[in-house]
Amino acid sequence: MERLIGVDIGGTRTRVGAVLAGRILARRAFPTRGVPEVRAAIQEVLEEVGWARPDAIGVGAPAPLDMRQGRILHAPNLPHWNGVNVVEELGRAFACPVFLGNDANCAAVGELAYGWRAQDFLYVTWSTGIGGGIVAGGQVVWGATGQAGEIGHIPLRPDGPRCNCGKRGCLEALAGGAGLRARAQERLGLPLSAQELVERARRGEPGPLALVEEACAAMGQGLAIAAELLEPEMIILGGGFTASWDFLGPKVRAAFEDLSRVRPRLELTKLGDDVGLLGAAALPLHFPRF
Amino acid sequence: MERLIGVDIGGTRTRVGAVLAGRILARRAFPTRGVPEVRAAIQEVLEEVGWARPDAIGVGAPAPLDMRQGRILHAPNLPHWNGVNVVEELGRAFACPVFLGNDANCAAVGELAYGWRAQDFLYVTWSTGIGGGIVAGGQVVWGATGQAGEIGHIPLRPDGPRCNCGKRGCLEALAGGAGLRARAQERLGLPLSAQELVERARRGEPGPLALVEEACAAMGQGLAIAAELLEPEMIILGGGFTASWDFLGPKVRAAFEDLSRVRPRLELTKLGDDVGLLGAAALPLHFPRF
Repeated sequence: MERLIGVDIGGTRTRVGAVLAGRILARRAFPTRGVPEVRAAIQEVLEEVGWARPDAIGVGAPAPLDMRQGRILHAPNLPHWNGVNVVEELGRAFACPVFLGNDANCAAVGELAYGWRAQDFLYVTWSTGIGGGIVAGGQVVWGATGQAGEIGHIPLRPDGPRCNCGKRGCLEALAGGAGLRARAQERLGLPLSAQELVERARRGEPGPLALVEEACAAMGQGLAIAAELLEPEMIILGGGFTASWDFLGPKVRAAFEDLSRVRPRLELTKLGDDVGLLGAAALPLHFPRF
Repeated sequence: MERLIGVDIGGTRTRVGAVLAGRILARRAFPTRGVPEVRAAIQEVLEEVGWARPDAIGVGAPAPLDMRQGRILHAPNLPHWNGVNVVEELGRAFACPVFLGNDANCAAVGELAYGWRAQDFLYVTWSTGIGGGIVAGGQVVWGATGQAGEIGHIPLRPDGPRCNCGKRGCLEALAGGAGLRARAQERLGLPLSAQELVERARRGEPGPLALVEEACAAMGQGLAIAAELLEPEMIILGGGFTASWDFLGPKVRAAFEDLSRVRPRLELTKLGDDVGLLGAAALPLHFPRF
């Protein structure tokens, strides 16, 4: 499998790329809609690079999904993809094998195939939500049905704020962008985006600074927990918050080092904004046999 | 490798066995001392089963160790083994390959080879201390240097009680036998063993019951965290506390189900008191290439 198509379905934008040996030869990006738009974009990149058909298509999505069936399950934030069997739809259109995976697991696959290429690492997306993917001994840890890596939903404070998943005090509720925004509204009465909150914290405003420091402490604790369980050589971070890593990184690292005896390197993704797209393209190379 | 010797070095007792296809053909058990006593016991079981020499020896120990070198590092509770290179000492004596691993990782190997034989599971020893071992996709998760699986040292309460490892609020400090004993002394002024504490809780004494319920809640939270990260099909428990599983299990399970979206089966080890010995014997079959 060499001529790969990656499809990275995001909450707001979808990216499609033709990938050969870790290089994106042609790409499209557009507001997330449904199957017809993705099919058209794949057709366009295939024509641009002159492939009659791809060897395989990998699709990453930020939703609960059934990897075995290749179907997206309940996806409130992706209305056009709710219940869609991606493997059947795209497999029929392009006559090739299609693989579907969770977006953060795909990002870990991307780092394994084309990025840091470490053998034992944890990948963490720190954005509106928080996701993760685990590689151990050079193999992706998929879990019993492909749901492993959910560091965003490890319960840190059983009596903490309600999480989108229905539980309380998950890392995502404490440190994710949506959680931070909710906390700014509740505690400070400020309708701020997570990015604005971080900017105000950087300028030293006490209320925002306290919230951001709490979020960094929770992230450090979550990473320390994962490090004690997995003893990774690296923890690789991606997602919107890493754009402010110069400010947030030292706070996360301080909490982490206080709580972990294991000392993996903390690094940002080597693949930048393309980590999801490249990871989706590499998914066919690492897909599990269930 | 068929004719295996397992050596399970415990804090108080050491067990040695000759194991063929998961059956213990001969065994010795004695108070933990050092290399000469283990060498003599191996010689005895070899003579009993009529093997000129074993195909391999596997050794499990409850101490920080260097798996690559086969050396036990700092072992305050195993004074005769402090700094001993187990692989060299026993390899020279019996002219066969020798492998050294953490005792909880060995227990996971035992369940993989001879016990539940699941492909994705977490093994947890709940005793004076708390240890763990992880199997994902049929492979043991060793970590970068063989220190993975340390569920006892995931930090649940950064402001919690001091742990033996030097950190604060680790699962082991909250739910391990030594931690419970310290809590009973501090809060109740009672010099009770963990077992006595559990018996008093079972009879409904309020102070002990509150401590035991806190410990079970912490264990449930720790297992929920591991389940969100690993999506195991099973969590397998062993160690002294599981003797009271009829009383403790429902409390652990209630906390677990409250905090985890993943629903693995919670089961007790299939290998009983022999899980450590059988796991040590199976270590040569699953040892990692570092």
